Amino acid sequence: MSLLNDTLQAIQPVSAEALAAAEERQNQLTKPPGSLGHLETVGNRLAAIAGVCPPPIPERPGIGLFAGDHGVCAQGVTPWPQEVTVQMMMNIAAGGAAINALARQAGATVQVTNVGVANDAPEDPRIRMHRVRRGTADFTQGPAMEREEALWAVEVGIATAVEFIDDGHQILLTGEMGIGNTTPSSALISVFTGAGPAEVTGRGAGADDAMLNRKVEVIEQGIALHQPDAGDPLGVLAAVGGLEQAALAGFILGAASRRVPVILDGVIACSAACAAVAFNEDVRGYLISGHAGAEPGIQAAVAHLGLHPLVDLGLRLGEGSGAALAVPMVQAAARILNEMATFASAGVSEG
Amino acid sequence: MSLLNDTLQAIQPVSAEALAAAEERQNQLTKPPGSLGHLETVGNRLAAIAGVCPPPIPERPGIGLFAGDHGVCAQGVTPWPQEVTVQMMMNIAAGGAAINALARQAGATVQVTNVGVANDAPEDPRIRMHRVRRGTADFTQGPAMEREEALWAVEVGIATAVEFIDDGHQILLTGEMGIGNTTPSSALISVFTGAGPAEVTGRGAGADDAMLNRKVEVIEQGIALHQPDAGDPLGVLAAVGGLEQAALAGFILGAASRRVPVILDGVIACSAACAAVAFNEDVRGYLISGHAGAEPGIQAAVAHLGLHPLVDLGLRLGEGSGAALAVPMVQAAARILNEMATFASAGVSEG
Repeated sequence: MSLLNDTLQAIQPVSAEALAAAEERQNQLTKPPGSLGHLETVGNRLAAIAGVCPPPIPERPGIGLFAGDHGVCAQGVTPWPQEVTVQMMMNIAAGGAAINALARQAGATVQVTNVGVANDAPEDPRIRMHRVRRGTADFTQGPAMEREEALWAVEVGIATAVEFIDDGHQILLTGEMGIGNTTPSSALISVFTGAGPAEVTGRGAGADDAMLNRKVEVIEQGIALHQPDAGDPLGVLAAVGGLEQAALAGFILGAASRRVPVILDGVIACSAACAAVAFNEDVRGYLISGHAGAEPGIQAAVAHLGLHPLVDLGLRLGEGSGAALAVPMVQAAARILNEMATFASAGVSEG
Repeated sequence: MSLLNDTLQAIQPVSAEALAAAEERQNQLTKPPGSLGHLETVGNRLAAIAGVCPPPIPERPGIGLFAGDHGVCAQGVTPWPQEVTVQMMMNIAAGGAAINALARQAGATVQVTNVGVANDAPEDPRIRMHRVRRGTADFTQGPAMEREEALWAVEVGIATAVEFIDDGHQILLTGEMGIGNTTPSSALISVFTGAGPAEVTGRGAGADDAMLNRKVEVIEQGIALHQPDAGDPLGVLAAVGGLEQAALAGFILGAASRRVPVILDGVIACSAACAAVAFNEDVRGYLISGHAGAEPGIQAAVAHLGLHPLVDLGLRLGEGSGAALAVPMVQAAARILNEMATFASAGVSEG
């Protein structure tokens, strides 16, 4: 048995009973029914995940941030040089990136894993070294990686989630860094949702019109070459995916296997979540969409996953930024179910 | 000189220099330019308010929550009985309402002021008693209140803001409770923005189609009767406003006079902000829109005020809930400018 198979077998559906109890409780609390909008949905989902209503307020958020590079950059899909992946990984390890500031605000820990950076990176005790390979291959020429490499990256992600949870983190967030990584993410979302590449491809970290058209062509080419089968997520990840996408898929599976909620960041995380759900449908119930972002792939993915993004600030940064911003909202959703008085207990008349 | 006049004279424009410095700094930080979307706008605004870049992270949020009743309820504009205003005010004072749970999440203090509740309320040391009158009069029959009463309520709000700030609160949030108070709020927004009542009136805490139509008619009637002059905000508040709206207008003026940012909640706060800006245009720069909410009046008001809401979760509760949820985002916006490395300092290549 592999770690992946063990993990898939351990994943249970969320609790329908706790969900129903939460939905009923929302209507007894001293507020007009439904007046907290999507915050109620998230609170109910936390109850379903925890299997109890009210659910505990999820404390000690942990951000699993995976760094990798992409051979498809050879096709001119990003204005940023590949060396920036290492530079930003070091910046994140040193605490100077946006995700670090947002993590401090959220009271979250950032754990950086080098799962597939192409260039040499200085050894640094703040970076976990689990490099499966030095970047993927260009998926317009052949598969991005071997199937065994995709499995290894998925298992790095599972192990990261389990370590976080064993260390007391009660909610996990997806993070990533990888120049060019919106291209494989849009490819994955196209395969898993069935939407055309043009519908799910955006400007990433600054593509102009010509580059955006190039991204769409490159994705169409990759999908035409490999004809990936959406029912075989490991095959899809190997064909047109990336190492951080595979690791994040595993990270999500690991969280679900331990009944821990996962807040998704942007388009890279959404592509990984589509893969995780293709591995096991029951994963759906453990997902929370952190933010809407500027990438069109997010919309297709969250529709496919049945989610509603919590934050919509026009972010297009990645790293985990949108997930970190959503943490206080998720905790607030749990607080509502825990701390509010009912009409009966507070002596408030109903409308 | 009145407290209102002193306050209006003390309000200075925000700093254009600090704003420009913040805009420039955003582009030096290790992220694609503009990639933090509206979070960058808010961070820049905090710099303009503080007059320095980077701006301090605003700590110790204070929610000024004003409770009042509305004579226009006699016209059947809400499904909730008026007694709920007192009941909910007591629930909030006891810590059992949604705003209390959300304030705890945000690390915020809630200060409840009875500025105009109609019914008897038990004496409670947790409620500041500054009742200008027992609810407004029905504005379809005559002015909601006397001009002097509106002034008094505005000054209660100013004093509340100043007390909060003297007590060390570095950012203020608007809160309110008042059965029926979306009706005068939509009336105020209609007058100050020039939008028709039908465009800016919504379902409040649960109006059905017939009641929504009734609300629009009632507002049209009130505006036709009083013909309020948008250039005379005290006159508008007295004619078709409410005591908590007047107090919130003063609360906002008080914050601006001390160069403290104010996060607006929903439609009631937005109507008060329109009044505050009518008193003094320079108030605009001190405002942050907490949430979009379900009320159409919010959209008209934020467009009029040049703001972009931070939270969009389909909330329709009021109390200050949307403002409280926005606090961590506002603090995160300041952290970005304070804590992120620059391309130069981190040795990251630019795109």
